[in-house]
Amino acid sequence: MAQDHPDSQLFPHATGAAAQMVKEHEKEEPLKLYSGWFCPFVQRVLLVLLEKNIPFQYIEVNPYHKPESLLKLNPRGLVPTLQYDNKPLYESTVICEFLEDAYPSASPHLLPSDPYTRAQTRIWIDFVTSRIIPAFHRFLQHQSTSSTSIDTVRSDFLDTLKRFTEAMDPTGPYFLGGEVSLIDLIMAPWAVRLWVFDHFKGGLKIPRGEVWDRWGKWLSAVEQRKSVVETTSETKHYLPIYQRYADDTAQSELAKATREGKGVP
Amino acid sequence: MAQDHPDSQLFPHATGAAAQMVKEHEKEEPLKLYSGWFCPFVQRVLLVLLEKNIPFQYIEVNPYHKPESLLKLNPRGLVPTLQYDNKPLYESTVICEFLEDAYPSASPHLLPSDPYTRAQTRIWIDFVTSRIIPAFHRFLQHQSTSSTSIDTVRSDFLDTLKRFTEAMDPTGPYFLGGEVSLIDLIMAPWAVRLWVFDHFKGGLKIPRGEVWDRWGKWLSAVEQRKSVVETTSETKHYLPIYQRYADDTAQSELAKATREGKGVP
Repeated sequence: MAQDHPDSQLFPHATGAAAQMVKEHEKEEPLKLYSGWFCPFVQRVLLVLLEKNIPFQYIEVNPYHKPESLLKLNPRGLVPTLQYDNKPLYESTVICEFLEDAYPSASPHLLPSDPYTRAQTRIWIDFVTSRIIPAFHRFLQHQSTSSTSIDTVRSDFLDTLKRFTEAMDPTGPYFLGGEVSLIDLIMAPWAVRLWVFDHFKGGLKIPRGEVWDRWGKWLSAVEQRKSVVETTSETKHYLPIYQRYADDTAQSELAKATREGKGVP
Repeated sequence: MAQDHPDSQLFPHATGAAAQMVKEHEKEEPLKLYSGWFCPFVQRVLLVLLEKNIPFQYIEVNPYHKPESLLKLNPRGLVPTLQYDNKPLYESTVICEFLEDAYPSASPHLLPSDPYTRAQTRIWIDFVTSRIIPAFHRFLQHQSTSSTSIDTVRSDFLDTLKRFTEAMDPTGPYFLGGEVSLIDLIMAPWAVRLWVFDHFKGGLKIPRGEVWDRWGKWLSAVEQRKSVVETTSETKHYLPIYQRYADDTAQSELAKATREGKGVP
């Protein structure tokens, strides 16, 4: 069965810096994260766990042979699934906010304490999932046979990045200022995958200007963040996965939703 | 200009029980809610304000003559927009959680204090917006010329209600048990609009069974909730608005997104 699935050639585990991080989190812990090494939604949760130095056990899930322990927790078997106190939690942004709530003494604090700034942070977290990621995938999965031109999907994607950047603290380098926060970590997995556009889609073609300088400053701070480096595998293993997105033949829920003109499922 | 807009025949203000509630919130207050009497997303915020007894000023927005004060706060001029400390907040679920954060002494508390239960509540809040509302609109805007049958869109919608109900505390009457919480208030505006399916689409045709008894118990508790009654206008004034959805000629962002096969914009 599994070998018939078009995505079944997936490389089986993390590599590069991420392989070391996985090795350091293999021993049994009550808090378990069911993961896929390539999955940007999993990476969000890993970033929060590492930043806050919360002990956890990393469990790599083969999506074609899902472990029984995962299916018992989450019948759909999706990653990321967090096992906390023997109970399941899913949805990456919900898990991230949960970790902030459930480990109140673990610093850094990733949400501002002021209710107004916290609400604004939530608006921009939602913007990443509801606007930036769908635009990222419309660009990545664009085909020359599409009714829209590649210039249109590229500029729609850049427009979402521009709006995101315009909402940042002017000095930075992070979104809210000098300290990293949840909004940076929620966006980081897509920021560090922007090379896919150079590789497959003729480049991002970022214009010049003040707002794009600010974007570059943010991107550079995020790319160099220790937690981001430690959760990134070797580019060559992401390549075949993103090749299938670029050819618009990927079969993930997100790939299919994008083909149907929908947002993040 | 305005009279050319197909939605411009909108009745201009709240009626029935909601008219009295508006009257009681007309006087100047630092906390202002820019509203539309007919809008279910506005109703979510009103429910939280009334439940927590937070002083606020109600400002009715004519969507074809938006006040300058609103456009200054929110250039897109959307409702609900909350003005807090002379700064804007939008997105109904963000505003609702903000009110919970910003008025910590105002009871009842609408989010559970246990982090795990709070995270689960957030998953179901997201389920309302990402699953139930799109299915509600696909059913409501269904046309006899559609490629899918009305039975399919009806049963897809009922399926979302069933999944929602199966996640409830078994006794209730509210979602989390004996006390009202944010998840009830986030869903209530659509629950009290279910008559639109009887009026326009041949009925909801809810099956019998234990899960539907639990749904009925929840619905009855929510419909009778004082805050819900006080934020509901006379049915006859909602009718022409929903007529345009039922004919699939409405021009709201949500109506257009549904026509394009997308979710809540």
